Amino acid sequence: MSVDQAAKREIPDATVARLPGYLRALGQLTAQDVLSVSSEELAHSAGVSSAKLRKDLSHLGSYGVRGVGYDVAHLTYQISRALGLTHDWPVLIVGMGNLGRALASYGGFATKGFKVVALLDRDPTLVGQQLDDLRVQPMTELESLVTPGEACIGVIATPAGSAQEVADRLVAAGVSSILNFAATAIQVPEGVHMRKVDLSTELQILAFHEQQRSGGMTDDLLEGAG
Amino acid sequence: MSVDQAAKREIPDATVARLPGYLRALGQLTAQDVLSVSSEELAHSAGVSSAKLRKDLSHLGSYGVRGVGYDVAHLTYQISRALGLTHDWPVLIVGMGNLGRALASYGGFATKGFKVVALLDRDPTLVGQQLDDLRVQPMTELESLVTPGEACIGVIATPAGSAQEVADRLVAAGVSSILNFAATAIQVPEGVHMRKVDLSTELQILAFHEQQRSGGMTDDLLEGAG
Repeated sequence: MSVDQAAKREIPDATVARLPGYLRALGQLTAQDVLSVSSEELAHSAGVSSAKLRKDLSHLGSYGVRGVGYDVAHLTYQISRALGLTHDWPVLIVGMGNLGRALASYGGFATKGFKVVALLDRDPTLVGQQLDDLRVQPMTELESLVTPGEACIGVIATPAGSAQEVADRLVAAGVSSILNFAATAIQVPEGVHMRKVDLSTELQILAFHEQQRSGGMTDDLLEGAG
Repeated sequence: MSVDQAAKREIPDATVARLPGYLRALGQLTAQDVLSVSSEELAHSAGVSSAKLRKDLSHLGSYGVRGVGYDVAHLTYQISRALGLTHDWPVLIVGMGNLGRALASYGGFATKGFKVVALLDRDPTLVGQQLDDLRVQPMTELESLVTPGEACIGVIATPAGSAQEVADRLVAAGVSSILNFAATAIQVPEGVHMRKVDLSTELQILAFHEQQRSGGMTDDLLEGAG
């Protein structure tokens, strides 16, 4: 795979974490046929300060034009390229319960540079079921689906009790990026990237703001955090 | 509802956003019967610097003891109290497709201060179905399920096309905190807290790191970001 030179720049982690938000905001502008956007407008849509936005984008070598702002299409391309989304990343989902099915049919992946290429479950009653274009495969197929050295993202959507075992098998098969939706912490060896999604985190942040409100505070603490 | 004085402190948004991570790390320590933890250890588990952790916790009036660290049980209580999780928040889920079902049965909510109290869908073939302790109710029941003035969190797990209409109805019924899982942006009036969960954000961040790896870079950029 040829890797664009621009993608090799050193981009701080905090900036990387904000790029998907910018991409989402740009997607909304594109849908509204907006051609260019000021740093202030884009920053507001993404919920950051315009100074932070400009700093972040400067890491991509992207600078707005004074009085004109950023070209929406070009900036979308630059961020997509930096994130490695200008080609499709194959995604393999393990665990075909409700969450796994929801992820398999999540419309957002396909449009954002990801292609779900395989669905796996150990439950024989689920194996063979058709979900959109894919058929659920047994866990025994896992190793044959991963080509060591070729990038592939493994998504764990199993019950908590199986998550570590699934992670171990993914890693042994050569998967080096794992997204864990199971409600438990898992360990992976150094060199494997693992991110954990906790569906209750956002609810906890909302609860904080509800509590502030119940306390009679009127300041909108969420302003700028969305 | 009586609101604890400590919950009314001014806590920066960025700190609020990190508190769920600290709570998760503390939960793992509790599960391992660990009684006290140093700021370095806790910071490492939560993926932040220890200086940032200490600063964050100081906003809650929580300071570790030199050479001893933080009392796990007490710190868990302090963070839970700050987030408003020492009592259960009622949660109402609209949309009983795969994602709604996954959220309804997500084990993480119940243990973290949330109680799913109602499930709604407009599809007559889903209405009446039993999911764990709850029965799916028709959308016509929405207004009767919300008591204006009483805190309640509305979760939108509908297809994108219905999300705005559902949000409007939730707001009209008196819901002031909304978590949107639908793959679209929705507008809410000022005074309503809305957070959007985009399931592809984490995948995009993983893709960035996969690309760095493919490019032959050996630095572990994710270190400290997890």
